[in-house]
Amino acid sequence: MDAREVVDALLRPDLRGRTAYGAPQLDVPVALNTNESSYPVPAVVVAAMTAAVEEAAAGLNRYPDREFTRLREALAAYLGRSGTTVDPAQVWAGNGSNEVLLHLLQAFGGPGRTALGFTPAYSMHPIITTTTGTAWVDGMRGVAGAGAFDLDAASAVVQVREHRPDVVFLCSPNNPTGTALGLDVVEAVYDAADGLVVVDEAYAEYARAGTPSALTLLAGRPRLVVTRTMSKAFALAGGRVGYLAADPALVDALRLVRMPYHLSTPTQAVALAALAHADLMLETVDAVRAQRDRIVDEIARMGLSPVPSDANFVLFGGLADSHATWQGLLDRGVLVRDVGIAHYLRVTAGTPEETSAFLDALAALVPTHAGAAP
Amino acid sequence: MDAREVVDALLRPDLRGRTAYGAPQLDVPVALNTNESSYPVPAVVVAAMTAAVEEAAAGLNRYPDREFTRLREALAAYLGRSGTTVDPAQVWAGNGSNEVLLHLLQAFGGPGRTALGFTPAYSMHPIITTTTGTAWVDGMRGVAGAGAFDLDAASAVVQVREHRPDVVFLCSPNNPTGTALGLDVVEAVYDAADGLVVVDEAYAEYARAGTPSALTLLAGRPRLVVTRTMSKAFALAGGRVGYLAADPALVDALRLVRMPYHLSTPTQAVALAALAHADLMLETVDAVRAQRDRIVDEIARMGLSPVPSDANFVLFGGLADSHATWQGLLDRGVLVRDVGIAHYLRVTAGTPEETSAFLDALAALVPTHAGAAP
Repeated sequence: MDAREVVDALLRPDLRGRTAYGAPQLDVPVALNTNESSYPVPAVVVAAMTAAVEEAAAGLNRYPDREFTRLREALAAYLGRSGTTVDPAQVWAGNGSNEVLLHLLQAFGGPGRTALGFTPAYSMHPIITTTTGTAWVDGMRGVAGAGAFDLDAASAVVQVREHRPDVVFLCSPNNPTGTALGLDVVEAVYDAADGLVVVDEAYAEYARAGTPSALTLLAGRPRLVVTRTMSKAFALAGGRVGYLAADPALVDALRLVRMPYHLSTPTQAVALAALAHADLMLETVDAVRAQRDRIVDEIARMGLSPVPSDANFVLFGGLADSHATWQGLLDRGVLVRDVGIAHYLRVTAGTPEETSAFLDALAALVPTHAGAAP
Repeated sequence: MDAREVVDALLRPDLRGRTAYGAPQLDVPVALNTNESSYPVPAVVVAAMTAAVEEAAAGLNRYPDREFTRLREALAAYLGRSGTTVDPAQVWAGNGSNEVLLHLLQAFGGPGRTALGFTPAYSMHPIITTTTGTAWVDGMRGVAGAGAFDLDAASAVVQVREHRPDVVFLCSPNNPTGTALGLDVVEAVYDAADGLVVVDEAYAEYARAGTPSALTLLAGRPRLVVTRTMSKAFALAGGRVGYLAADPALVDALRLVRMPYHLSTPTQAVALAALAHADLMLETVDAVRAQRDRIVDEIARMGLSPVPSDANFVLFGGLADSHATWQGLLDRGVLVRDVGIAHYLRVTAGTPEETSAFLDALAALVPTHAGAAP
């Protein structure tokens, strides 16, 4: 046997034959495939981050604050701006919201347990679930017509009652479809479920006006978790800070599964500097929203079918062969995301110039690429 | 039910009643409990780290290099300084070696599988193992006499053959006992085992002259893994960078379980700056070794029983009540580690001043605290 065969034979059986998660990291003029902010960190914040790391660097011989106390305080204060008071004891953070979700599944999933999500949703939910040995149940959203990809309370409750999962994932605004859930869905799922209900609000800051957060439902619901990230609206994908708000007892349970000192001192310092300039970091959110709405409008005018979006991206259908369109856009220097839904692609709302480049490239393709009804 | 009862009822059954890992993070004059380097990062390196973060900060709106290519190259080059050529494709890294070990157990452990370690060893090995649903088997080291805590090849092989584990942990130099393993033990365990053999070399740079690394055994052994960390000799505990060297096929398997983008851009930048100044970062290793040897000598002169050490700490026995001595030292401003071995404590070798403070405090206690034979 060669080395690869030896390693494959030792691998956990359910991992054999899998391929690693891998959105292409290609060097292209217009990268609109991973829902990053297209706006660089402002110079004032760069200076604050640099100063914070400079201050901390001499002490890097010491372990970081294992409890990331100041970061939890700052995240709680940030969430509190929405009007819902959040105590630092309700906050947990990790190296990206992926790690926060991993901690949840490590503590509340595992062999013999199941997690239910409503597909299509964030593709990491099933990966994180099965990584922890938890069984994944692929629930369904509405699939056709004007409400394609919507999830209503009645349908969600039926599926929760049928599968009785230990963990339910809701995603609002939903990635990759873009639409936020009504709180009635969250409430109904919580009431129907016996286990954890995780509302992934990675894109919450981009939601259309009047869209409430599940943060408002936390009080009195110890099985409810709301996850957030600094990667999107906060323009800090490279900083890797995801977080959640939940009952302090639930947060406590995550201390049993996290690796000690999981957040490095530089990660904590950089995130704190960003949070200290929250208004500035979030200043581009309105501009991104405007480009998102522009994408929806112009794509509809091209005869394609955009899904209504509360996020910084738009899923659009009506393509004869979505992979061919993906390649055609890439040939024109524009990288978007093929999320594996036939006839659909997802595009991130970038700067006005990036959005124009995307729309121009797509317009050039539409005459030959438009096709199947969404 | 109150919230804590609700959460406890949902917790993975094997986690119920556990307490979280927690070396006390106390604010004391002399902290010698977590085997950190007592030496701050040199000003030149602080400047390099600051410049690296300043350069990277504007681009933090983008995800980090998921493959941390430059970091793997720099770590491979660093390992190559020992004389064993290591290719970047053989290198993997995580947020501390804990995360690297977690990735190994996620990929090669899991329900129905077992990991064997030789206790006492690094206390996180069983915690990481059981976190992934892998069963832990507590192997034994020699316990009495001059070779207390030694592990010889014959004993290790018998235990491997008995338990046929999927993963074997060796720890060299061994934490908390301090002594390095002979490579004959690693070779014999590898030959006896069917599964992964992980040699945790977190303290390798402190080993006494002539102590070889298991890196020299990697060629032709696709089931062998050597883990390292930048937390100890590299004085970068706050940077959270652990890593491993193994066959490229084994490294590839870890891509199936790691969370995408698990190493933040600041973490990568800071580690690269440190590696670019490796000689300077390692300059205090000899000074620490000298204090370690001084501790061994002076403790023996006090009539206590130090274990020979290749690390930056010393385990010593001969205490009537190790917890009482731990408290007595703390009362004198010196924090050491009670590793849960009756009659023993572990102390990190710090600066000459810190070491003196520890030795003075201990000398004051010995007349009443010395007791049980080791």
